[in-house]
Amino acid sequence: MSEIKALLFDVFGTVVDWRTSLIDNFTAWGKTKGLKGDWTALVDGWRAAYMPSMDEVRKHPERGFVILDDLQRQSIEPLAAKLGITGLTSADFDYLTRGWHSLNPWPDSVGGLTRLKRKFIISPLSNGNVALLTNMAKHAGLPWDLVLSAEVFGHYKPDREAYLGAAKILGLTPGEVMLVAAHNNDLEAAQSFGLKTAFVPRVTEYGPHQNRDFKADGNWDYVVKDFNDLADKLGC
Amino acid sequence: MSEIKALLFDVFGTVVDWRTSLIDNFTAWGKTKGLKGDWTALVDGWRAAYMPSMDEVRKHPERGFVILDDLQRQSIEPLAAKLGITGLTSADFDYLTRGWHSLNPWPDSVGGLTRLKRKFIISPLSNGNVALLTNMAKHAGLPWDLVLSAEVFGHYKPDREAYLGAAKILGLTPGEVMLVAAHNNDLEAAQSFGLKTAFVPRVTEYGPHQNRDFKADGNWDYVVKDFNDLADKLGC
Repeated sequence: MSEIKALLFDVFGTVVDWRTSLIDNFTAWGKTKGLKGDWTALVDGWRAAYMPSMDEVRKHPERGFVILDDLQRQSIEPLAAKLGITGLTSADFDYLTRGWHSLNPWPDSVGGLTRLKRKFIISPLSNGNVALLTNMAKHAGLPWDLVLSAEVFGHYKPDREAYLGAAKILGLTPGEVMLVAAHNNDLEAAQSFGLKTAFVPRVTEYGPHQNRDFKADGNWDYVVKDFNDLADKLGC
Repeated sequence: MSEIKALLFDVFGTVVDWRTSLIDNFTAWGKTKGLKGDWTALVDGWRAAYMPSMDEVRKHPERGFVILDDLQRQSIEPLAAKLGITGLTSADFDYLTRGWHSLNPWPDSVGGLTRLKRKFIISPLSNGNVALLTNMAKHAGLPWDLVLSAEVFGHYKPDREAYLGAAKILGLTPGEVMLVAAHNNDLEAAQSFGLKTAFVPRVTEYGPHQNRDFKADGNWDYVVKDFNDLADKLGC
């Protein structure tokens, strides 16, 4: 087993609890603004639009890469209309989109990352854009060494360019890099391109709609309880 | 004056003392290896090859972007031969090239950056490649929020794409970003593209060969003594 030198982290769901963060944020904000709406349905519907919106980017390389902020901004307006949430201005939609920049970490995230950083290069490898990930890190206190994003490689995960681009830009072989994720399909892609893999379950990520990723489904290099358990197992 | 949200730092000379670091490193290493050579001349000559090597990249976009590690590796072999330093293996040249990954900070760099990070996004904006800057940050304890590099934008400073690309990837306007540098020409380029500017003198950067940048030559937004002085002036 070649020595692991860098740990790359999936972010949405793996490092931060996007669902609770957004629902709490929008519910409080809606009250302040006097806006009525099913914010939980909005958040769940928005997340459901995530994969199809990235597929559109993948299908149309001639249009150029579109960052996640712009995809999210495009999908929120029709979704709000569909859910009967009315009276939102353009600035309101901007506010909602910006909500993805200030998600809160799982309880073990900051402490675990801080330990892992002592021994490894730690970076997100997320479909979130660089500004989103940078602002999130400032908000949540995530102690990244650097910020790697699909935006840097012009390809969304699970495209090979994202995983192999991350190893290359760090000057490392794929086997010197390990992806940490709460999603088996992300790890499956990473493993297929030669990266090492660590699974951490985040079984409340989708709330009552969680229907997968309760446990490791593949032959991952590490299966851990949380980031502190990973730090224990990696000797940090 | 629009609010500054991110500080971008030139690195070689501004954050780290490349010359003393490399001379000390190579002198000690040469003794261990039993290699004789004028390591000071090697370091000075290597740095002199820096600008011309980037100009070649600029002149030949059809060849694609070449990262600084590769440029440095290409220029060191003929330089060593010219200086009569013989007996170096390919692994030795790799070692020397890797020396640029472990440069030491100026005395105020880590403390000043740590203070500035409380209020601003802080990132390098360097011609060094991402791996070089990442390894340097681990070595020197530089507390970057993220690592921006010419490599990410496919253009070396002073090309506009580097400065404007950095603002764009942070989701900021050029006026919300300030470049901090010890080099007036770097600040001149940044200012011409709408960034704010801060000059910090590093008058021993080139040792006895220093022939410019003893003081601010332009109308910069801030002229400071060191990073702590900048933190004072920015209220950090």
